[in-house]
Amino acid sequence: MVHLTRKEHFNAAHRLYNPKWSDGENETVFGKCANKHFHGHNYNLYVTVKGEPDADTGLIVNLKELSIIIKSKVIDQLDHKNLNLEVDLLRGKIPSTENLAIAIWNELKPHIKGCTLHSIKLFETENNFAEYFGE
Amino acid sequence: MVHLTRKEHFNAAHRLYNPKWSDGENETVFGKCANKHFHGHNYNLYVTVKGEPDADTGLIVNLKELSIIIKSKVIDQLDHKNLNLEVDLLRGKIPSTENLAIAIWNELKPHIKGCTLHSIKLFETENNFAEYFGE
Amino acid sequence: MVHLTRKEHFNAAHRLYNPKWSDGENETVFGKCANKHFHGHNYNLYVTVKGEPDADTGLIVNLKELSIIIKSKVIDQLDHKNLNLEVDLLRGKIPSTENLAIAIWNELKPHIKGCTLHSIKLFETENNFAEYFGE
Amino acid sequence: MVHLTRKEHFNAAHRLYNPKWSDGENETVFGKCANKHFHGHNYNLYVTVKGEPDADTGLIVNLKELSIIIKSKVIDQLDHKNLNLEVDLLRGKIPSTENLAIAIWNELKPHIKGCTLHSIKLFETENNFAEYFGE
Amino acid sequence: MVHLTRKEHFNAAHRLYNPKWSDGENETVFGKCANKHFHGHNYNLYVTVKGEPDADTGLIVNLKELSIIIKSKVIDQLDHKNLNLEVDLLRGKIPSTENLAIAIWNELKPHIKGCTLHSIKLFETENNFAEYFGE
Amino acid sequence: MVHLTRKEHFNAAHRLYNPKWSDGENETVFGKCANKHFHGHNYNLYVTVKGEPDADTGLIVNLKELSIIIKSKVIDQLDHKNLNLEVDLLRGKIPSTENLAIAIWNELKPHIKGCTLHSIKLFETENNFAEYFGE
Repeated sequence: MVHLTRKEHFNAAHRLYNPKWSDGENETVFGKCANKHFHGHNYNLYVTVKGEPDADTGLIVNLKELSIIIKSKVIDQLDHKNLNLEVDLLRGKIPSTENLAIAIWNELKPHIKGCTLHSIKLFETENNFAEYFGE
Repeated sequence: MVHLTRKEHFNAAHRLYNPKWSDGENETVFGKCANKHFHGHNYNLYVTVKGEPDADTGLIVNLKELSIIIKSKVIDQLDHKNLNLEVDLLRGKIPSTENLAIAIWNELKPHIKGCTLHSIKLFETENNFAEYFGE
Repeated sequence: MVHLTRKEHFNAAHRLYNPKWSDGENETVFGKCANKHFHGHNYNLYVTVKGEPDADTGLIVNLKELSIIIKSKVIDQLDHKNLNLEVDLLRGKIPSTENLAIAIWNELKPHIKGCTLHSIKLFETENNFAEYFGE
Repeated sequence: MVHLTRKEHFNAAHRLYNPKWSDGENETVFGKCANKHFHGHNYNLYVTVKGEPDADTGLIVNLKELSIIIKSKVIDQLDHKNLNLEVDLLRGKIPSTENLAIAIWNELKPHIKGCTLHSIKLFETENNFAEYFGE
Repeated sequence: MVHLTRKEHFNAAHRLYNPKWSDGENETVFGKCANKHFHGHNYNLYVTVKGEPDADTGLIVNLKELSIIIKSKVIDQLDHKNLNLEVDLLRGKIPSTENLAIAIWNELKPHIKGCTLHSIKLFETENNFAEYFGE
Repeated sequence: MVHLTRKEHFNAAHRLYNPKWSDGENETVFGKCANKHFHGHNYNLYVTVKGEPDADTGLIVNLKELSIIIKSKVIDQLDHKNLNLEVDLLRGKIPSTENLAIAIWNELKPHIKGCTLHSIKLFETENNFAEYFGE
């Protein structure tokens, strides 16, 4: 069994904000990340699948096809978007890196065929990243 | 004469949008970068100064002091902010990487003492960056 | 359960040196890394915690608070220091990347509350790094 | 137990090509990666071993010695070579990143003494990499 | 005037080889880079243009359009190709990083409109790169 | 004329310290960088030469030979050394990044034959670097 990883990226705006709380409570908990006018990031997304290399191709999965799946199912929803206002896969969730990693897993999982989704690793910045393994 | 560079970073939301144009015109020119809900970036800023190393310190400028100047004059205005809505140094300007590099130069220039500001290099993403030399 | 990682960095001097051995034995085993005048590195430290995102915040841990803990408990002891001569958490240990990763784990572990410390990953250079999982 | 990783690199030419198939079939499956004149990559190889730091040295393994083993057993076979035409450890295999990671594991495994080989992580590009754990 | 840079990349095979020389002479001069079966690289290409930001758009050039020009005029010729055997812009030239940077300049120059091509910076590896300014 | 750059690296200890000043004055000016037990860095050195590619080789300079010159004349003096105590090319100078870039230029300059030394760019950390052009 080999793990194979594809990196994609997207740029998005967001704020950390719980609509059940007052602005003051949000600012106390999230600090400048709660700024009502939003801020944003260049997100780097690493999707790892695992499986046995096919005897005829040497591949676990065709990375070009995997890239197309990631782009059409996930990146197109997220790139140049506002994660709080207009992204279906985050509807009703606070767009933390943690929640976003889980949501990307759930969105991608049904579309990974012929190998197994192993992890979603999402960099919000060079200094902060989350990784989710599906449970 | 030696060039000395300090890297700082900030995260911000923006959109490319000319308020004199209709939404349709903006989308034609700027594509998804005009998204009305904004998107965002992790910006990396490289400030380069030049001068002769001081005989007693070996330094052109104390980088800790330069870092404090960049943070207090520029980063604090930009970090976790919306470049279209709430940043004084971009008031009335489209927040392109080009315009932002020029605006940072103009903001920093009066505060660089004892050496000469040489360039502002601003990465919007790993793939796109602007550099401004003051003229 | 999600893994969340925070990157910090510090710059330090060290040498690989066993005080129970002669200088010649140290040089035989450690080569130029045993240089008696020391050498140094820019260390990059990745602290990974794990847990379930809080329902109200979407966060496993507030990364700003985690960063403050890492800085106050670990970085302040190590940054711009000599790892052989003046760092309590390495007292009596050879400051190899391996030992330093373990020592950082032991120092941080009691201060991680509300989530679980998963790993300490420490880069001595781009080409060499150690990772410790607590056992 | 600590994991310790050493990074090495090599530059090589290859193509994805199954000699049992026609040129047309190869192009259908592998696209431009099947180009008969080859293309190439700067490969980055991360070799991870694990063990307990030695009480006298603080080291799991002397990284200089590990580097020499990786270079003499693996890099010298691969660097500035054509992975389809002249590399023994890939004889009869399609030089996919997956197969190459497995082949490097098999080549290195008998030479890792005093600690345990944990994983081979191989970057074909910044965006694509495979990781193999020996089973 | 602002400089604006766009990064693109391509993967290619090549060898350093002068067809006027014997194999022995080529190996003496170019060493393992002359390997007759080729080797290859992940090339990173930085195209820098300069001009004044347009008053209406804030842009020197639309980077999406610049990217399309670079890809259609240069990358499509080079990506997943053999630089010695099948690339028109290198016909009759030794595919050194230096020559490749010049050839890319010459190929792109006629297609840069509305701003000025400033430089071509080409990384063959992280450790080796060439930069050409058109004269 | 093309610019060609070779990257090398070294790890060293240093402190910012003017022996003509008291310890207190040094600490006032240099802060924690003056720590008497030293700290250290992973330095990245970029040496840029310029010239016209040779008609027969396509090269400005053989990068393997340039690398050997840089290593034998500069890196061997600096790697795994203490820049304050044991490095001839810094004798009598405060080992700031600025002074070190100038000293490397002066050391290398007489050994660059067949092309012209253009610049020395020296990274002390990812965030701080100096560049010297010989005047």
